[in-house]
Amino acid sequence: MMNKIDLSAICQIQYGVFIVTSFSNDKLNGQIATVVFQVTIQPVQIATCLSKKNLTYQFVMESKAFGVSILSEEADLKFIGKFGFRTGRDFDKFTNTNYKKSVAGIPLILDHASGILDLKVNQTIDLGTHTMFVGELLSAEKVSDKKPMTYDYYHNVVKGKTHQNAPTFQ
Amino acid sequence: MMNKIDLSAICQIQYGVFIVTSFSNDKLNGQIATVVFQVTIQPVQIATCLSKKNLTYQFVMESKAFGVSILSEEADLKFIGKFGFRTGRDFDKFTNTNYKKSVAGIPLILDHASGILDLKVNQTIDLGTHTMFVGELLSAEKVSDKKPMTYDYYHNVVKGKTHQNAPTFQ
Repeated sequence: MMNKIDLSAICQIQYGVFIVTSFSNDKLNGQIATVVFQVTIQPVQIATCLSKKNLTYQFVMESKAFGVSILSEEADLKFIGKFGFRTGRDFDKFTNTNYKKSVAGIPLILDHASGILDLKVNQTIDLGTHTMFVGELLSAEKVSDKKPMTYDYYHNVVKGKTHQNAPTFQ
Repeated sequence: MMNKIDLSAICQIQYGVFIVTSFSNDKLNGQIATVVFQVTIQPVQIATCLSKKNLTYQFVMESKAFGVSILSEEADLKFIGKFGFRTGRDFDKFTNTNYKKSVAGIPLILDHASGILDLKVNQTIDLGTHTMFVGELLSAEKVSDKKPMTYDYYHNVVKGKTHQNAPTFQ
């Protein structure tokens, strides 16, 4: 096999659609993420991958904690756009957003969520443009029985686009 | 929010179904994996997470290279079982399997694949029971237009089970 990269092959990898959240002092922030996955069972560790350009990345580096909302197919483009295509640097994404706080202070978004996860960072892995955070699960709650959204569904049904800071191709 | 873990919430995370392969001298091996995901675009890096108990883990540690076959919905339980529920220690999984070799010697399985990826290991992250390998993509090829299999499809349509060494809950 010769070395040749056909990007359409990479796009066959499956993802979900999530909001990863964190905080810094009294500021809250969150961003859309597609890369969230369990990596061990004992203890339960879950990893995510964030762009170093993003405010949520800064907050996770600082607080050493993050939250995950697993979005359901109910999430619409307007809601996803608020967390995926605007920066929290000049805009409070949590106004008119329903959430509850973890013991550590992480906001866990309830709107359009199938489930919410609360994690503390065990490992931080520098990947160049992005950093992978491996978090240990502190709490997990099912929010609804609605079907979790796949990235495929986001592109083909919700008709969503991919942000330039995402770690994956569209 | 109190600290309480509802495992059904974690099961809402979406995955695909893959075969991760590697080699040691003239021995080839591969195993079913659900955790395969892109983590950066420049360069294209893709991560996977393997149990330290598995032979494929040993081979990737040694060769510093791995392959990924992205399975399509065509893959049946018998085929998945060969790679997912038997060990390569006492059985050659590559007999009667169609594959081609990468430049480095990694076997890339073509049977029931939507796409194949050839990677060299950039980083090895110890996660306790499992190790995460971050690989840089050397080549990628689309094998068919068949729909990639989701983990959800594997459980609900193929009626497959989860191996005890998997990093994810069923």
